[in-house]
Formats: sequence, C-alpha cells, structure tokens
Amino acid sequence: MAKLTTFVLGGINSGKSAFAESLITNQTTTPYYVATSVVLDQETQEKVSAHKNMRGPNWQTIEEPVDLGSALEPLPAESFVLVDCLTMWLNNLMYQELDVDGYTDHLLETLAQSELNITLVSNEVGLGGISENALTRKFARLQGTLNQKIAKKSDRVAFVVAGLPMWLKGGI
Amino acid sequence: MAKLTTFVLGGINSGKSAFAESLITNQTTTPYYVATSVVLDQETQEKVSAHKNMRGPNWQTIEEPVDLGSALEPLPAESFVLVDCLTMWLNNLMYQELDVDGYTDHLLETLAQSELNITLVSNEVGLGGISENALTRKFARLQGTLNQKIAKKSDRVAFVVAGLPMWLKGGI
Amino acid sequence: MAKLTTFVLGGINSGKSAFAESLITNQTTTPYYVATSVVLDQETQEKVSAHKNMRGPNWQTIEEPVDLGSALEPLPAESFVLVDCLTMWLNNLMYQELDVDGYTDHLLETLAQSELNITLVSNEVGLGGISENALTRKFARLQGTLNQKIAKKSDRVAFVVAGLPMWLKGGI
Repeated sequence: MAKLTTFVLGGINSGKSAFAESLITNQTTTPYYVATSVVLDQETQEKVSAHKNMRGPNWQTIEEPVDLGSALEPLPAESFVLVDCLTMWLNNLMYQELDVDGYTDHLLETLAQSELNITLVSNEVGLGGISENALTRKFARLQGTLNQKIAKKSDRVAFVVAGLPMWLKGGI
Repeated sequence: MAKLTTFVLGGINSGKSAFAESLITNQTTTPYYVATSVVLDQETQEKVSAHKNMRGPNWQTIEEPVDLGSALEPLPAESFVLVDCLTMWLNNLMYQELDVDGYTDHLLETLAQSELNITLVSNEVGLGGISENALTRKFARLQGTLNQKIAKKSDRVAFVVAGLPMWLKGGI
Repeated sequence: MAKLTTFVLGGINSGKSAFAESLITNQTTTPYYVATSVVLDQETQEKVSAHKNMRGPNWQTIEEPVDLGSALEPLPAESFVLVDCLTMWLNNLMYQELDVDGYTDHLLETLAQSELNITLVSNEVGLGGISENALTRKFARLQGTLNQKIAKKSDRVAFVVAGLPMWLKGGI
C-alpha cells in the first residue's frame, strides 16, 4: 500500500480535527496521535481533554511539542498518524526561540522519506487582516509559509469550514 | 414541496446577505426577514438601514435578538425566511449572559420540525488567528461550534467570498 | 485575442502573489508589475525585496500607490499586467484620506475599457471576526466591498489557501 500524506486546514473550532480523525478511523483501528500542545493553563487543559474525549480510547498518544520529525520516525511503517496541530507546534518553536526553518525542513524530510500515512492539521490564520502587533504579524507570515510548504508536499489538502471539507488537492 | 434549510457563511462585507437574499427572492414574492441586530449605536443603525434598503419593500421584517425558535414557529408553513445573522444573535446571547446551548438546541429543533424554508446567515470568524482577548477567544470557539451544528442540520451550505459562493454541501 | 481580467484573493502569506504570477508567466515573457506598496519601514522593504526576487528579472515594474487607473491606461494593448495588491492600495487611499469610491470607479472603468490582461491581487481580511478598533472595522468593510466590486467585473476569480487555488468564477 502506498503511503498518503494528508493536510487539513481550517479555522478555530471549524471541525478540522474531527474531520482529520474521521479520515484515519475509516482506515485503521490502531491510530497514533501526535499531540503538540503544551498544557500551561486551564484553557488549554480543557481543550486538550475535550479533544481526547472526542477521539476515544483506540488512539495511542505521543506528546511532542517541538521535534516532530524525531517523534514520527520510530512509528511502525504503514501506520496512520495524526499530527494535531502545526499551529501549536509553530507557537512552541517561536516561544522557545528555536529554529523554525530547521525543524520544518526536518519535518518535510520525514514526510518525504517515511512509510507512514501522516495527516497533519493546521490553522489558517491569515484571513482576518493585518495585526497591529508585530509578533502576531510575524506568526501569520511564518504560519502562511509553513502551510504552503506542507501543502506542496501533501498528496491531498482539505480546507474545512463549519465541519465541511473543500478539497484543494486530491480528495476522497 | 419539501422544505429546504440553507446555511450561508462568509466574512465581513463578503456579500453573504445579498447572496442569501437572492436565493429567496428567486423563490417567493412574500419573504420573511428575521433581524437579530439590536440597534445600540449609529454604526449598527447605518448597517441595518443599508441592509433594509438593499432588500426592498417586499420583505416582512421580524425583529428578534434572542429567541429565534419562538420567532420562527408562528410563520405560515412553506414560507421562505431569512435569519440574518447568527453572529449578532450569538453576540446578544453572550452579552446578556443567556444560555447559548439552550437557545441553540431550541433553534435546531425548530429547523428539524418546522415546515419553513429557512436560510440562516452567519459569519466565519476563526480564520484570523487566536486573539489575545479571552472574550474574543470564547466568542470564536462558540461561533465555530454553532456554525458546525447549523451546517450539520442544513440541506445546503455555502461559503461566500467576494460575493461568490462555494457550495460545501448541496447547492443550486 | 480577447482580454481576460483575473482576480486572486487570499490571506497573509497564502501564496496568492506567486499563484497570480504563475498565471501570467505562462502567457508572456514581457509582463508588467504594478506595485502599490509604499516603503516606509524595514518590514515593508523586506517584503517588497522578497517579492521582487521571487518574480525574477523579466518583469517591468511600475510603482503606483494611488492612481491605478492612470497607471494602467498607457500600457500597450494585450499586455499582461499584475496589480499587487489592492489591500495596500486601499490602505494608501485611507491613510491619505483620498476618495476611495472615486478611485475605485476609475479602476473599474479601466478594467472595462482597456485591452489589457489584468490580474489583480487582494487580501480577504473579513474572516477573523469583528475588531474592537473602529478604523480596522472600517477597513474590513471597505475591503469587503472593494473585493465584491472587482470580483463582479472579473472573468475569473480564485481564492488561494496554502498556495492552492479554489476557483470561484471561471478558471484554468
């Protein structure tokens, strides 16, 4: 079976994670979940718990806020893996002042070389105008560039609005 | 004639209301308009007046900022009704600290049980990144959840950009 | 050859400019680029330089921050022209307190009457919710209205997410 890289984009509470999960649970009973969130406050804790309950008990969770490439490499070939989400990941890299381009290149190499079926979730954040805050503007630029790079290397790309996908590339 | 529930999503001044109106005026000469705006300042007054002028005199207007279910129930079966918009409605519920889930459930029951052709308009608000303001973040989460629920119960869903629809479900 | 007006919409770093350029460089070796940016700070300077490097040396650049109609009129018939972007242009008009409607009408007349193949790039800015800042709200309203007017007069309209187009009208 050829591996398939899938990219799911959407807004806040757009249903993008649930849609991404549904793509995977249709294909396997032993999915992996790579969680990028770092729980620092109650709001994040509630969000993480809600996502976990939604996923159900079949999923094996790996927490990796920074080095996604290294988290993905040891997983068994042909597994189905959900990476949720690249926006928290980018946030972590920026917050810790790490090398965004370097970690991105490592992730892209992993996508190219691994035998996993990887689905990545990310936020589209650049459709609300330009912020007055310089850091927010930088985040929007980096997120836009990251999303373009992942989309280019994915076999299929969906943009989710109100729980419903528009396929920008490939599809089901 | 079977009833049809339509959901029209879009951004600020995206042409979503005009598009939703065009779907209705193609079908009836006696449409109903359920307005959710509460006029508290001049900016809202100007927006409401501009929308009213655009609609023209055929429309019968019902003002209901909170209890949409109860506003819709008395309308004659098979009528065409435009609810504009769910973003102002959610704003009103939050501002008055009312039960968002309860009013949403009532609206969803009305959509399921009524014999009306209801078109609902709402804003997509979650594609501009995460706000620094906790209330804005809460609004974005609730709006996203509400939009998913309405989309799930609608027969057709359009996402409008620059006056042009992308059909996410059903269509014309 | 009949002229073609194309409108490309997208978010921050969505790949909209690169996509618009690819539509033109497929068609001609002597494209024109109408740049609307005014370089007032280093951030803009870096963005302008990055765009210029991306375009390559074939493009003939015309800088016009305000009077797009007059900048387009002298260009040779049947040329391919990229106007990048209408969001900076609207920003310039507002910042200088110029007549947005008047300049927009002039641009629309030029689109209707010229024999150029014009591709216009603009930002979608209204999908991130309503700002607390009155000027930002005004900008979002004017940008939404402008985008609708340009889309209506264009032969084809694309909405770009993560470098990938969704055609709202016409297409390739």
